[in-house]
Amino acid sequence: MDKAGKRSAAGRAAQKHRAILAAATTLFLRSGFKGTSMDEVASLAEVSKQTVYKHFADKEALFREIVEGVTGSSDAVIEVITAAFGDVLATTSDELEARLCKVAGVYLDVVLHAQVLSLRRLIIAEAEQFPDLARRYYEQAPARGIEVLMNCLQPYVDVGLVAADDLRLAAAHFAYLALGPAQDRMLFIPTERPTPQERNQLAAASARAFLNAYGTTTSTAPTTSRTVPPAGSQ
Amino acid sequence: MDKAGKRSAAGRAAQKHRAILAAATTLFLRSGFKGTSMDEVASLAEVSKQTVYKHFADKEALFREIVEGVTGSSDAVIEVITAAFGDVLATTSDELEARLCKVAGVYLDVVLHAQVLSLRRLIIAEAEQFPDLARRYYEQAPARGIEVLMNCLQPYVDVGLVAADDLRLAAAHFAYLALGPAQDRMLFIPTERPTPQERNQLAAASARAFLNAYGTTTSTAPTTSRTVPPAGSQ
Repeated sequence: MDKAGKRSAAGRAAQKHRAILAAATTLFLRSGFKGTSMDEVASLAEVSKQTVYKHFADKEALFREIVEGVTGSSDAVIEVITAAFGDVLATTSDELEARLCKVAGVYLDVVLHAQVLSLRRLIIAEAEQFPDLARRYYEQAPARGIEVLMNCLQPYVDVGLVAADDLRLAAAHFAYLALGPAQDRMLFIPTERPTPQERNQLAAASARAFLNAYGTTTSTAPTTSRTVPPAGSQ
Repeated sequence: MDKAGKRSAAGRAAQKHRAILAAATTLFLRSGFKGTSMDEVASLAEVSKQTVYKHFADKEALFREIVEGVTGSSDAVIEVITAAFGDVLATTSDELEARLCKVAGVYLDVVLHAQVLSLRRLIIAEAEQFPDLARRYYEQAPARGIEVLMNCLQPYVDVGLVAADDLRLAAAHFAYLALGPAQDRMLFIPTERPTPQERNQLAAASARAFLNAYGTTTSTAPTTSRTVPPAGSQ
């Protein structure tokens, strides 16, 4: 085979590899690991079963590559959280509340994405059979989101707008205040997506609850735009 | 057949019914709906496959009876929550914080029970295939827990120790503050059970965060045991 022929063969092989991965992802998300057969994967990918086995030794290898691939691309969550926090520090509690509201909103959008929820269901379903994969996913997705939140909150601890003995737990509290109600409901009832209005209410309520729990009104920056409530009214 | 013979036949049938349900529960929790066969159920229950089909038309009927059975017995959650709140109202914020800490602790114990978590994984896994069952479970277990919390918090709104525009959402916030971090981690990593010390820390932190977010220091009852913090320091 000449050089051009080799390139073209490699290109076709890569194309088949991608087609098999795409087909398997669709089937695993729809029917789970045990409910999916290599025959179905071959059929949906429009390749022979022999070709599937040339690319993946067995169904487990295919499953692992898919989950690892999605886990590796969890950067999307990190990006939307850090972007929503912004490059410039908020200098008042009101400003910070507005930022946290925005963070909670985009965080909700990302984790309630239909395919993210389906993947979450799939990995939870297989957590006992593939403990290493489920652990990696947990560490790279939910736990990493909380870590990023913690890093984004740290400057607000430094300037005195946020106070927490355990900032990691405070960040987790913010995450579950924001995501808990809607994410839990949609894990069981995939069709019960919050309306845009509900999504905004959930985000606003979580930002408010978090700042009431962990915010301070003392800041190294002027807090003119904040109305200080009477003692204990929070 | 005489009367005693009929009774004994009925007893044997009921015993087989229970044995089939117990075997199927074990298998579904271990291998999921699709990963379990009626042959395996018969084998583990030590009955013939014919007997299994005499009791349950198909695997779906068996699955439904198990999930409905567990869903119906979610009273345990309600009992532990209401018992932890106690019969007599706490009259100070400090007392209420101690109650909420106890509530959060027993709530964690119930939802992190290994079999409850396995069932949660199983139902989440099958949420797209059995939407009606998953919805019923959600309504009867997580959502009902939040409703009970809300009912238990209402008297504290009435006496002015708790203030919330939306008490249902405030109750959900308490639930996810308390349960979110550990429940989410254990859904993915079944072996990462909080130590008794971590469990107490999670419970205490959630009670404190909730009361900072939704508690007031004004109460119709004397609040002598509470140190009122300076304005806005929460």
